[in-house]
Amino acid sequence: MTTTATTLKGQPLDRQTLDAMLRRRLFFTPAFEIYGGVAGLFDYGPPGCSLQANIVDLWRKHFILEEDMLEIDTTVLTPHEVLKTSGHVDKFADWMCKDPKNGDILRADHFVEDVLESRLKGDKEARGEKVEEEDDPKKKKKRKTKTEAVKLEDALVQEYEEILARIDNYNGEELGELIKKYDLKNPATGVQPSPPVAFNLMFQTSIGPSSNLPGYLRPETAQGQFLNFAKLLDFNMQQMPFASASIGRSYRNEISPRAGLLRVREFLMAEIEHFVDPEGGKKHHRFSEIDAIELTLLDRHTQLAGKTDVKKMTIGDAVRNKVVDNETLGYFLARIHLFLQKIGVDMTKVRFRQHMENEMAHYATDCWDAELLTSSGWIECVGCADRSAYDLSVHAKKTGAPLVVRERLDEPRVFEEWQVEIDRKKFGPQFKKDGKTVEAALEATNQEQREKLAKQLAENGELELEVAGVGNGTVKVSKDLVKVEFRKRVENTREYTPNVIEPSFGIGRIMYSLIEHVYWNRATEDGGDEARGVLSFPPTVAPTKVLIVPLSANKQFQPFVSKISQKLRKIGISARVDSSSATIGKRYSRNDELGTPLGVTIDFQTVQDSTITLRDRDSTKQVRADEDTIVAAIQSLVTGAREWKDVAAELPAFEGQEVDVAVR
Amino acid sequence: MTTTATTLKGQPLDRQTLDAMLRRRLFFTPAFEIYGGVAGLFDYGPPGCSLQANIVDLWRKHFILEEDMLEIDTTVLTPHEVLKTSGHVDKFADWMCKDPKNGDILRADHFVEDVLESRLKGDKEARGEKVEEEDDPKKKKKRKTKTEAVKLEDALVQEYEEILARIDNYNGEELGELIKKYDLKNPATGVQPSPPVAFNLMFQTSIGPSSNLPGYLRPETAQGQFLNFAKLLDFNMQQMPFASASIGRSYRNEISPRAGLLRVREFLMAEIEHFVDPEGGKKHHRFSEIDAIELTLLDRHTQLAGKTDVKKMTIGDAVRNKVVDNETLGYFLARIHLFLQKIGVDMTKVRFRQHMENEMAHYATDCWDAELLTSSGWIECVGCADRSAYDLSVHAKKTGAPLVVRERLDEPRVFEEWQVEIDRKKFGPQFKKDGKTVEAALEATNQEQREKLAKQLAENGELELEVAGVGNGTVKVSKDLVKVEFRKRVENTREYTPNVIEPSFGIGRIMYSLIEHVYWNRATEDGGDEARGVLSFPPTVAPTKVLIVPLSANKQFQPFVSKISQKLRKIGISARVDSSSATIGKRYSRNDELGTPLGVTIDFQTVQDSTITLRDRDSTKQVRADEDTIVAAIQSLVTGAREWKDVAAELPAFEGQEVDVAVR
Repeated sequence: MTTTATTLKGQPLDRQTLDAMLRRRLFFTPAFEIYGGVAGLFDYGPPGCSLQANIVDLWRKHFILEEDMLEIDTTVLTPHEVLKTSGHVDKFADWMCKDPKNGDILRADHFVEDVLESRLKGDKEARGEKVEEEDDPKKKKKRKTKTEAVKLEDALVQEYEEILARIDNYNGEELGELIKKYDLKNPATGVQPSPPVAFNLMFQTSIGPSSNLPGYLRPETAQGQFLNFAKLLDFNMQQMPFASASIGRSYRNEISPRAGLLRVREFLMAEIEHFVDPEGGKKHHRFSEIDAIELTLLDRHTQLAGKTDVKKMTIGDAVRNKVVDNETLGYFLARIHLFLQKIGVDMTKVRFRQHMENEMAHYATDCWDAELLTSSGWIECVGCADRSAYDLSVHAKKTGAPLVVRERLDEPRVFEEWQVEIDRKKFGPQFKKDGKTVEAALEATNQEQREKLAKQLAENGELELEVAGVGNGTVKVSKDLVKVEFRKRVENTREYTPNVIEPSFGIGRIMYSLIEHVYWNRATEDGGDEARGVLSFPPTVAPTKVLIVPLSANKQFQPFVSKISQKLRKIGISARVDSSSATIGKRYSRNDELGTPLGVTIDFQTVQDSTITLRDRDSTKQVRADEDTIVAAIQSLVTGAREWKDVAAELPAFEGQEVDVAVR
Repeated sequence: MTTTATTLKGQPLDRQTLDAMLRRRLFFTPAFEIYGGVAGLFDYGPPGCSLQANIVDLWRKHFILEEDMLEIDTTVLTPHEVLKTSGHVDKFADWMCKDPKNGDILRADHFVEDVLESRLKGDKEARGEKVEEEDDPKKKKKRKTKTEAVKLEDALVQEYEEILARIDNYNGEELGELIKKYDLKNPATGVQPSPPVAFNLMFQTSIGPSSNLPGYLRPETAQGQFLNFAKLLDFNMQQMPFASASIGRSYRNEISPRAGLLRVREFLMAEIEHFVDPEGGKKHHRFSEIDAIELTLLDRHTQLAGKTDVKKMTIGDAVRNKVVDNETLGYFLARIHLFLQKIGVDMTKVRFRQHMENEMAHYATDCWDAELLTSSGWIECVGCADRSAYDLSVHAKKTGAPLVVRERLDEPRVFEEWQVEIDRKKFGPQFKKDGKTVEAALEATNQEQREKLAKQLAENGELELEVAGVGNGTVKVSKDLVKVEFRKRVENTREYTPNVIEPSFGIGRIMYSLIEHVYWNRATEDGGDEARGVLSFPPTVAPTKVLIVPLSANKQFQPFVSKISQKLRKIGISARVDSSSATIGKRYSRNDELGTPLGVTIDFQTVQDSTITLRDRDSTKQVRADEDTIVAAIQSLVTGAREWKDVAAELPAFEGQEVDVAVR
């Protein structure tokens, strides 16, 4: 499962160098670091905050605006009863082991995975095969003991590999059996940990002054959307299908967070709940628009066979071949694919992996994860689940609220069926206190039973029915008290509980994976060995769009700097001025690390003829033109209307300062 | 203190009618309503969510972009130690009383306020004066017993009024004394509640699987900004002053939330921490831009005198007259004023109220609240505090992190002062184990003491110093061990802890107050008695900008509807199509309630000549022109570049469908 991560340009990706750069540029930083930090909690500095805002903004346009979804904003604090009903209180847990010797708390699946991977690595070493470097420094540190080069039997190697391929499919008991069977020991102590127990991942608190209302921090935004279903349907003027959406924080008390931004305890989610009629195969009216989009799929059967081979397939074929359950689920998988592409994710590092039976959340009937390949392996960044009618049904049952759609039928539906008609006036006097019970037993009969009862009535003038607790358990009812007849019934309205297709995005994970995908090292032009990091964000996503640099601190440049800044601010383009005394090359380097796609330089020629230069981060090429032409070019690049090659083809190239860029 | 609230047009504001409308249109709704709801928790539906997003967007442009503030995004989960250091664990509390009879939990200041207001009302009734209606239905309900018409002595009336004017200035003990002195009883039981005790308002939880790290949900975003101060200063290339900003949720476990969106337990805050050099009077380099802006001020002295009379004053004069402490604080008060104006707040219903000594948060040295007048009285919507160096100092002291600015001085500072020089080689052998103590005592002397010690050395060849715990408490040090001389000291760098000016916005309170300020009732044209609600949001803030209505369900209209929708979407203007079968008038009414400022109608003339009509919500006037002209007009209105009167003056008026508007 270990992967060798590469940069955008195929260079080996050094996670530690990248992390150091991201912290230096304040993309993110451990929260409460001056207090020693808290595992799994991170703050975003200005570039991270802006990158996050831009991704969320594109998300909102791509999903909410494009499909007129109903965005709502619900509370994080959630009373116990709601999450008890949804099943989270009982089932939203990970399996946790404890080391009896030193008290280490281990997440069971990660523990099994780590030890087996370590043994496989030792086996490779013993066989003299090339062993890939561990990319995740935290993981390396966590393992503590060095891998021992011990050769394993071929059959055992295959067993381990198959276990790892379906590691997400084991429950606690099964993980416990694996630990015993293969004698898996905590590397820190050499001791086998205790059997896995469930640890609920929700943060608990209590609401109100008298501490009488227990509550949790929501583990997902979904429940707030379900509880408002009836109001949203009303707001949508009873039109189906429709989707609600929420962007907000959720909380999971991870057992042992690691891997930086990839497993955190507080995170931003963007979730869609698309409500659809379960009848008619969950078709989607815009499916034809995405039918031909090709996705990379890793289905359930492949994984259960202990393999991880992906298939490339159009989403149209995937739905028609029943690899993906239905059109609506397939539609959203394709839309997710398009979204990831739009924000700049490397699509060769994306796969859609289907959940295995035991792995699926307690509510899901089918589920696919969009996974992105990073230096920590394949990371689940988007989940897309068919939650069926589960949530609406359980909340409706618990509260009595009608979380249903009532639809007037264009053509009334006619049912022909056996119906029971009871003469209540005679029924009471005859059966006395048992009247209601007998009545209920009659009503509860199914079609097959009723057909038999009708026959009895016709043949014997009475029917015999088993009614527990009345007399000797068998009751006779004569034909003057009850009729059982085959009749027509007409329905003009239809009532149903919608099914829910839920695309659910972990914004922080997407953001971190994207950063790895657009990261690369620029060779220094003077052949120096210090690699210079670049983040090639698309201009639409980049935290800052334009760096404005005056050639030097010369006062003549100042009015031009102010003017271009104001012009850009007025059209809503975020720019940053760097008037520091560093060389232009150094200032551009700093902004390469921030992923700023464009640079504008004010130099002595500007003072003479008011022209300015525009630099492309990725190619370091420059063009030169008057201010308005450059501003128009910037705007077209930032909105995504044009690409650099279009601009470079149109405007005169400029070579002047490029020599300076190599200077450090 | 009770006020008669009015609408934008001066009509009496009926809170219940407004609330019903806001819920019907799903601006907001009690969270978990199908589970019976939880006090103080609300969800925002699509219009509320969009209104909130637009206010936040304008806030970001008005403050963050305009002044290049550093936006960061920090975690809500906060470990105990951080909030212990900041003082929140010990001091972030309200005073709470308990009714010994029925267990009612009362917030002490609100309880005192309610009972005294009720007695004053009863006094007015007894004197036969007009009594204003209670506007807040929850308050009315809460009071439970009817006000008794009992006449009070004139002196007592004055006492009560003075207490109410400074109700925010009492601590728990004082509130307890008031309860005893005036025998204040819980109306629900007729019993005097227990003496007030402090109730901490933070929600508590624990972080991690072993429950060993207690934490809280942050009560403000500020601490996350302070903890990152050193990194932010670095990111800002050591330039001072600068500001950080955060937009995010905070949590306060209110004792008894009421008044709808005005007192909630989970809310969105937008906070700025402006770091400024405490030397030089906290000047602000852009103060001249806002010097002449006139604010409505209610200062501390007026309130302590038991009055609530406001003064109108330019912020320039307020700072020069020391009503407001310094320029930077004043600058932000004026910027807050401009922001409220920009989003459409009725500026006749705004005042800036200064905090009284006991009322100020434990960290503040001066603080002003922007209060907005609503049907629940004057509501604190923005706080603007000078937190001095408090937070940075306590965190630096606790953690040892250098939360300071180091500034290279352009001109070195020269100090002439008495300096102590100890000969450590001889000192140790002479004083043995007491050496360090005596040394510290010498170092700790001030300038005045040193001057005397120098004199002793010169005159007696030794000095006498009191050192507790050494010998008999007096130590003699001879001149061969120590020199005390008047010398020059040169400093090339200066180190200081910045002071913090903090404007802090409660977005939900601003939003609700704004809704009351822009709400009014349109008389029906047929003289019907059903008042029709209108929310006159400025187009920049309105949740949806344009309603698109085809005259009828006629299929001919559909292509025009699609075309105009797409055009508007492309330029980022949120529009909503209403193709329902309701009359155009009804459809416009629905959108008046949603505050949609503009309406476009597609009718039979559109099919003939491609012209469409544009309707202004407030005047209900319409103009007619071709599609591109109307789209351009919409864009200029939505960005705030033009007003309706400009558009109406330019484009031909249209009267055609107006007759229909009266039809309901």
